[in-house]
Amino acid sequence: MKNTFGRHISVTLFGESHGAAIGAVIDGMPSGVRIDYELIADMMDQRRAAGSISTARREDDLPEFLSGIKNGYSEGTPIAFLIRNDNVQAKDYEQLKDTARPGHADYTGHIKYRGYEDASGGGHFSGRLTAPLVTAGAICMHMLNEKGIDIGTHIAKLKDIEDIPFDETNLKRDIELLHQRKFGVLDPQRSEAMIASIMACREQQDSIGGILDTAVIGLEAGIGEPEFDSIESELSHAMFSIPAVKGIEFGEGFHFADMYGSQANDAFAIDHGKIITKTNHNGGINGGISNGMPIRFRTAVKPTPSIARPQDTVDFAEMQEKKLTIVGRHDPAVIHRARVVVDAMTAIVLTDLLLERHGTLYFGDER
Amino acid sequence: MKNTFGRHISVTLFGESHGAAIGAVIDGMPSGVRIDYELIADMMDQRRAAGSISTARREDDLPEFLSGIKNGYSEGTPIAFLIRNDNVQAKDYEQLKDTARPGHADYTGHIKYRGYEDASGGGHFSGRLTAPLVTAGAICMHMLNEKGIDIGTHIAKLKDIEDIPFDETNLKRDIELLHQRKFGVLDPQRSEAMIASIMACREQQDSIGGILDTAVIGLEAGIGEPEFDSIESELSHAMFSIPAVKGIEFGEGFHFADMYGSQANDAFAIDHGKIITKTNHNGGINGGISNGMPIRFRTAVKPTPSIARPQDTVDFAEMQEKKLTIVGRHDPAVIHRARVVVDAMTAIVLTDLLLERHGTLYFGDER
Amino acid sequence: MKNTFGRHISVTLFGESHGAAIGAVIDGMPSGVRIDYELIADMMDQRRAAGSISTARREDDLPEFLSGIKNGYSEGTPIAFLIRNDNVQAKDYEQLKDTARPGHADYTGHIKYRGYEDASGGGHFSGRLTAPLVTAGAICMHMLNEKGIDIGTHIAKLKDIEDIPFDETNLKRDIELLHQRKFGVLDPQRSEAMIASIMACREQQDSIGGILDTAVIGLEAGIGEPEFDSIESELSHAMFSIPAVKGIEFGEGFHFADMYGSQANDAFAIDHGKIITKTNHNGGINGGISNGMPIRFRTAVKPTPSIARPQDTVDFAEMQEKKLTIVGRHDPAVIHRARVVVDAMTAIVLTDLLLERHGTLYFGDER
Amino acid sequence: MKNTFGRHISVTLFGESHGAAIGAVIDGMPSGVRIDYELIADMMDQRRAAGSISTARREDDLPEFLSGIKNGYSEGTPIAFLIRNDNVQAKDYEQLKDTARPGHADYTGHIKYRGYEDASGGGHFSGRLTAPLVTAGAICMHMLNEKGIDIGTHIAKLKDIEDIPFDETNLKRDIELLHQRKFGVLDPQRSEAMIASIMACREQQDSIGGILDTAVIGLEAGIGEPEFDSIESELSHAMFSIPAVKGIEFGEGFHFADMYGSQANDAFAIDHGKIITKTNHNGGINGGISNGMPIRFRTAVKPTPSIARPQDTVDFAEMQEKKLTIVGRHDPAVIHRARVVVDAMTAIVLTDLLLERHGTLYFGDER
Repeated sequence: MKNTFGRHISVTLFGESHGAAIGAVIDGMPSGVRIDYELIADMMDQRRAAGSISTARREDDLPEFLSGIKNGYSEGTPIAFLIRNDNVQAKDYEQLKDTARPGHADYTGHIKYRGYEDASGGGHFSGRLTAPLVTAGAICMHMLNEKGIDIGTHIAKLKDIEDIPFDETNLKRDIELLHQRKFGVLDPQRSEAMIASIMACREQQDSIGGILDTAVIGLEAGIGEPEFDSIESELSHAMFSIPAVKGIEFGEGFHFADMYGSQANDAFAIDHGKIITKTNHNGGINGGISNGMPIRFRTAVKPTPSIARPQDTVDFAEMQEKKLTIVGRHDPAVIHRARVVVDAMTAIVLTDLLLERHGTLYFGDER
Repeated sequence: MKNTFGRHISVTLFGESHGAAIGAVIDGMPSGVRIDYELIADMMDQRRAAGSISTARREDDLPEFLSGIKNGYSEGTPIAFLIRNDNVQAKDYEQLKDTARPGHADYTGHIKYRGYEDASGGGHFSGRLTAPLVTAGAICMHMLNEKGIDIGTHIAKLKDIEDIPFDETNLKRDIELLHQRKFGVLDPQRSEAMIASIMACREQQDSIGGILDTAVIGLEAGIGEPEFDSIESELSHAMFSIPAVKGIEFGEGFHFADMYGSQANDAFAIDHGKIITKTNHNGGINGGISNGMPIRFRTAVKPTPSIARPQDTVDFAEMQEKKLTIVGRHDPAVIHRARVVVDAMTAIVLTDLLLERHGTLYFGDER
Repeated sequence: MKNTFGRHISVTLFGESHGAAIGAVIDGMPSGVRIDYELIADMMDQRRAAGSISTARREDDLPEFLSGIKNGYSEGTPIAFLIRNDNVQAKDYEQLKDTARPGHADYTGHIKYRGYEDASGGGHFSGRLTAPLVTAGAICMHMLNEKGIDIGTHIAKLKDIEDIPFDETNLKRDIELLHQRKFGVLDPQRSEAMIASIMACREQQDSIGGILDTAVIGLEAGIGEPEFDSIESELSHAMFSIPAVKGIEFGEGFHFADMYGSQANDAFAIDHGKIITKTNHNGGINGGISNGMPIRFRTAVKPTPSIARPQDTVDFAEMQEKKLTIVGRHDPAVIHRARVVVDAMTAIVLTDLLLERHGTLYFGDER
Repeated sequence: MKNTFGRHISVTLFGESHGAAIGAVIDGMPSGVRIDYELIADMMDQRRAAGSISTARREDDLPEFLSGIKNGYSEGTPIAFLIRNDNVQAKDYEQLKDTARPGHADYTGHIKYRGYEDASGGGHFSGRLTAPLVTAGAICMHMLNEKGIDIGTHIAKLKDIEDIPFDETNLKRDIELLHQRKFGVLDPQRSEAMIASIMACREQQDSIGGILDTAVIGLEAGIGEPEFDSIESELSHAMFSIPAVKGIEFGEGFHFADMYGSQANDAFAIDHGKIITKTNHNGGINGGISNGMPIRFRTAVKPTPSIARPQDTVDFAEMQEKKLTIVGRHDPAVIHRARVVVDAMTAIVLTDLLLERHGTLYFGDER
C-alpha cells in the first residue's frame, strides 16, 4: 500500500516537493467530527520553519480541503486536501540532476523509478510531504482529545544538550506546555541553548540531529492487536515514514539491555480502584497492547543530510565520481519540526486502533 | 490484519501456548520454490532451548505441513503447517489465573479479550508463537539465499558483555559463521562469558536482556516503498511482533544524535563499476529504499519478564493486590533464541518487498 | 491477499483436495462468542453429499479446532481448524495428469503454477475447499443470529424446474424452513422433481446447474461502505469464491433491464414508525448500503464440469489434442450443496461489515 | 478500505457531487508509463453526456493532475488529480433535503453518516464520482494496450432493443469500432433506435436501464488469484462500485442454468501451437484464472432512479410520508455513459492482477 497507511482510518499521501501540489486523502473518517481548524493551524505552525533557525522557504499556506467536510464537520466520506507548491526555486536543484546527494534518496529513488522520478527538492521523499501528515494528524488529534487522550513530544536531546525529562507525575501539564511552545523543549534555558547550537551549526555549514521523547496520556487499556498489529508495530511503522527518523524505542528501549528483569518489570498495583503499574519501564505497553499507563517512546532523528560543505559523491547518469556543494536554503536541523509530525502520526495510529475496537460510531458528535 | 503480515507473501499466525497446536499459513508463495527442510530444522534448532541455559520444555517437534507442498517444492497455493503442543504442564500456570504477571500480557490480554482468553503459558502472546515465524522465515530465507541474499544476527550485547562487532569488510564470513553457531555470538570467548552470565542470572532468580545486531548482504538497490512501506517501516513492524523486542535502530540509529551531518552522511563512490557508499551509517537505506549496501539494524530485547523472585502484582478478577511467585521452567534470557526470529522476520519482509518489485515469477525454479 | 478474505474478521483458506488437510484460520474474531457446534454440524451436513444424488466420497469428518476456542467460546485470538483428507482415491486422477479437464482449473492452474501444482482432485480449486468456508460461515452465522439476523438460500431453478418463490411477506418462516431442509427447496414437490432430474442427469452421464436465491432478514440500515466496499461489491467478491458460481444479481438484477424507472424505484413509506420500502426491487440495498429491508440476491451456478462423457481436450505437457473420459465419483449437480456455502459466505461478509461499524465489542457475550 | 481499491495499483476516490472537487489518487503506478492524455480525453468524452439524450450539466473539465507525472510520464509516485465542481446548481437540491429519493442513497447515506453527509446531488454516491474512475482507468488502459490487451463494452440491450452480439471471431474489430462510437452500440441502426427510445423515455418522465456486454482480448493465461481474488471476484467487486450496476455474469452466466454440462464445458484444442477452447461459455475464466481466451462478462444497469414523475417517499427528518417531484436535469438513462466506466474499472482490475504476477518493472518504457 506504499502511500496509504491505516486500516479503519487511512491516509493516502501524494505529491512531490516541486510538483503542483502535495496533499492527502483521509478515508474512513467517522461522520460528525468537528474539524478543528485552529488545531490544524497550530500544528502546521509547529511544523513550519520557526524563525531564523529554519529554512527560508515560506509554507504558511494551509491545506485547501476538497471534500468530506460540510459546515465544519466531517461528513463520513473521504476528506481530501491539497497544499500548493507555489514557492519553488527549482533552479537551486538543477545542478543536482543525476547527482546522488549523500544521505538523501536521490540515488535509491533513481534506481527504484528508473530515471522517471522528479528528484527536484527531494521529490516525493521531501520532508515537505510531512505537511499533509500533520494536517491529517491534527484532525485525528482533535478526535482523541475529545476522548481525553493527549499527545506531546519534546526534544529530549539535541546533540550535546539534553532537555529535562518529562515529569512522569504530571505529564498532562508538560504536554499542554509543549502544545504552546514554538520550539518543543520543556526547559526554556535548554531551549535557548539548543537554538544557539543549531545556529552555530549553520555557521559551520553542518547539521545536527537528536532524540525526540513522546508521551501519550489518557489511552484506555486493551488497545492494540496481536501479533502483527501491536501498538509498537503500528507506531514504529508510522514513525519510520517520517524522513530522518532512524530509530525508535518503547519505554526503556535499548536501556533494557542494562537492566535485570527484577528491575525492568513494572509491578502492578491498585490505585483508587484502578489497576496501574508502579513504574512504567514498558512504556504503557504489555504484549503489544496498552495497559492504561502513559504510552512512552523515543525516536532518533538523524542530522539533516543537506549540508553546505563539499561532499564526495557520484553522478549516477555519467557513472563517475564528483564533488558536490549543495546550495540553496536548508535546515541545519529538522528535529524541532519533526516533533509535531511524531505527534501527528501517533494520533493517526491511535485513532485507527480505537476505531478497530469501538467502531465508527465511537467518534463524532451526536446529532 | 492482526495476525496476518505481508502483502505479496503473507503469514497468518495462530495458536496458544497451551492449546492444541500453533502454526501458520503462508499465502502468496511463488510456485517451484524448493522447501529446504534442513534449513528449517537448523533455524528451528537455533530458536530452541540450547542446553541448560534455556527452558526445559522440549520443542523438538518440527512443523507438520498440511498443504501447499508437493514433492518438496511449493505448489504456489497456501502452505499451512502446525506444531502440536504436546508437552503442556498447565498446572504450573493454574496459580497464575487472573494474576497479572508483571511485564507480561496477562492483564492487557484480559482487558482486550474480556476474560475469554486462554492466558495459560502466555496464551497467544507466548514466545512459543515465534516457532511458526521461524518456519515461515526459513522458507523465505532459502528463496533469498538463491538470489544471493543472506541474513545474520549476533548478540551484540548481553547486559555488561559485548560481542566483537561485525567485520564490515567481510560480513559474508561472519554471517556464515553465525549460521553454524548454537549461541549467536561472533567471539567464542565472549560467547562463553555470556552463557556464564545467563547461568548466574538463573541462580539469582533473575533475567537479562540485550541488543541484537543484524546484517543483510546481497540485497539489490531499489527495494522498499515510500512513504509508508519503507524497508524501515516494514522491518520495524515485523520486529515488534517478536515478544520482548522494545527498540529498533537502523545504521547509527540513536547514535546519530551525537553526530554532525558531515559525519553522518555516507559519501557515494564508484567501486569496480558499481555505486557504493564509503561508509554505511545509514544502514544501507536512503529514503526508506535499499541502496545496495548491507542493511544494518539493531534490536533491543528486554529481560524475560518471568522471574522466580516474588513480585508485587494484582489479581484482576478480585481486584486486589497480591504477591506473586512464578514457578515452573523459565528462561533467564531469550535473546539467544530471539536472534533467529529476527533473521526469520527479516527474510519474510525482504521476500515480500522483492515480490512487489519483481512479481511472483521471480522466485522458484524453472521447469 | 489471494486466500485471505475480510478486513475485520478475515478467513485465510488452505489445502488441496488430495493433500494432507484443508482448513482455515479465522482472524479478528471477537472474544466471548459461543461456538455453536450444532450449527456447524448442521451446515456442514447441508454441504455434504445428501444421499445417492451426490458423490460417494464420505466427508463426515468435522473440523478439528486447533486454537482460539476455550470452553466453547471464542478467545478473541485466531481460530484455526483443519479437516483431514483421509478418503483420497488418487489413482482415479492419475490418468488426468497434464490433461486439461474442460471447465476445470487444470490448465489455468498449470499455467499459473508452472507445473508445481497438485491438480489431483482439483487441488486447491476443488469444491472441497468450501468445507472450511462453511465452518467459518457457521461461526459467523451464530453471531448474526444472536443479533436477530438470519440468512437462507433456496434453489430457485434447476434447469427446467423452478421452486416457488420466497414469500416476501414471511421470509422468516421460509428461511427457518430451509434450515431444516436437506435439499434446499421450498416446495417439497419441486424438491422431488429436482432430485429426480439430477438422478436422470447422472444416468445420461451429464450434469446440470441452476440459480440460487438468497434472503437476509434483520439487517439494520446503514451497513456497507462506499465506493468500493458496498454490500454488493463485498457479497459478489465472496460469491465468486465459490467454484461454479458464474453470476450474481441483486434485487431485480438483470430483470431491471426490462423495467422503467417508475417501476424499478422502491417507494419509501413509514410502517409502525419505521422507514420501509413498499417494494424491494433493489434487494435492500441503495447506494451499496443496506436500507433495512431484506437483502435479496441470486447466484448462477453452472453445471458441474466433471462429466463421464468423452470430451475433447489437450494434454498440455505433450501439447497434443486427446480424448478424455473422466472416471471416478462426481456429482451431476452441486447447486444443492452450494446453497449453504452461499449462506456461509454471506454470513462472513455481513459480520465483517458489522464489525466495521460497531467494533469488536459488539459481538460476544458479556461476562 | 472503503474508498481505496486495488492492491498493487490502488485508486483512492474522493469528492461529493456538489463539493469543491472530486478526484482520486492512483498509488503503485509503475514509473515510465506514458500518460495518454488523448485516451483520457476520449474516454472522458464517452462518459460525458452525449448531446441531448443526457443531462445538461457540462463536465468538460478534464482532470487537473497534481503529482506523479513529469514530462508526460509517470514518475512511480502517486498520481493525484482533481476535477472541480464548478457548475453546481445546489438550489435544485434544496427541496430534497431530508427527503429519501426512491432508488437513491439519500436515506441509507443518512443512516450511515448520521445527518452529517452532504447529500446534495447525490453527494459521494453521485454518478459524477465515476469521472475519476474513468481517468484512472484510462491511464491503466494505455498500459494494457501497450501489452496487446484491449477492452470494449457495448449496450447489448436497452429495454426492448437488443444490439447485435459481438462477433466472437473478430472481437478486435468490434472493440476498435466501439472506441470510436459516441454511443456504445455495434449496429448503427439499433443505436438510433436506442437513442430514440431514451428520448421517448424523457418525454414520459421516466427512465430505462439495460445490459452491458464486455470483451477483453489479449490477456495472457494464468492471471487471477484463488480463492478470493479470482478475476471474477475482482471484476465483480469493481463493477458494483459503479452506481446503478445491479448484476454481473461471466460467460453464459445465468444462462448456464439452462445448459447441460456437456453443453457448458469448453473443449480444449490446439490452434497454431497455442491452447485454446473451441467455445467460450466460461468467458475466458476457469477456476477464477484467465485461460487465454477473451474475458467475457455482462453487467445489468438499472433505470436511473431520478425521474420527474411524482413519487411516494418519506421525509426522514420529520419521519413522515410525502410526495416527491424531482426537478432539475436528470438522465433518462445512464447505461450509455456507464459502458466506459465498465471499461475503466476492468482496466484497473487487470492492471492490478498483472502487477501481482509480473511486478512493477513489467510496465513502463525502458530508459
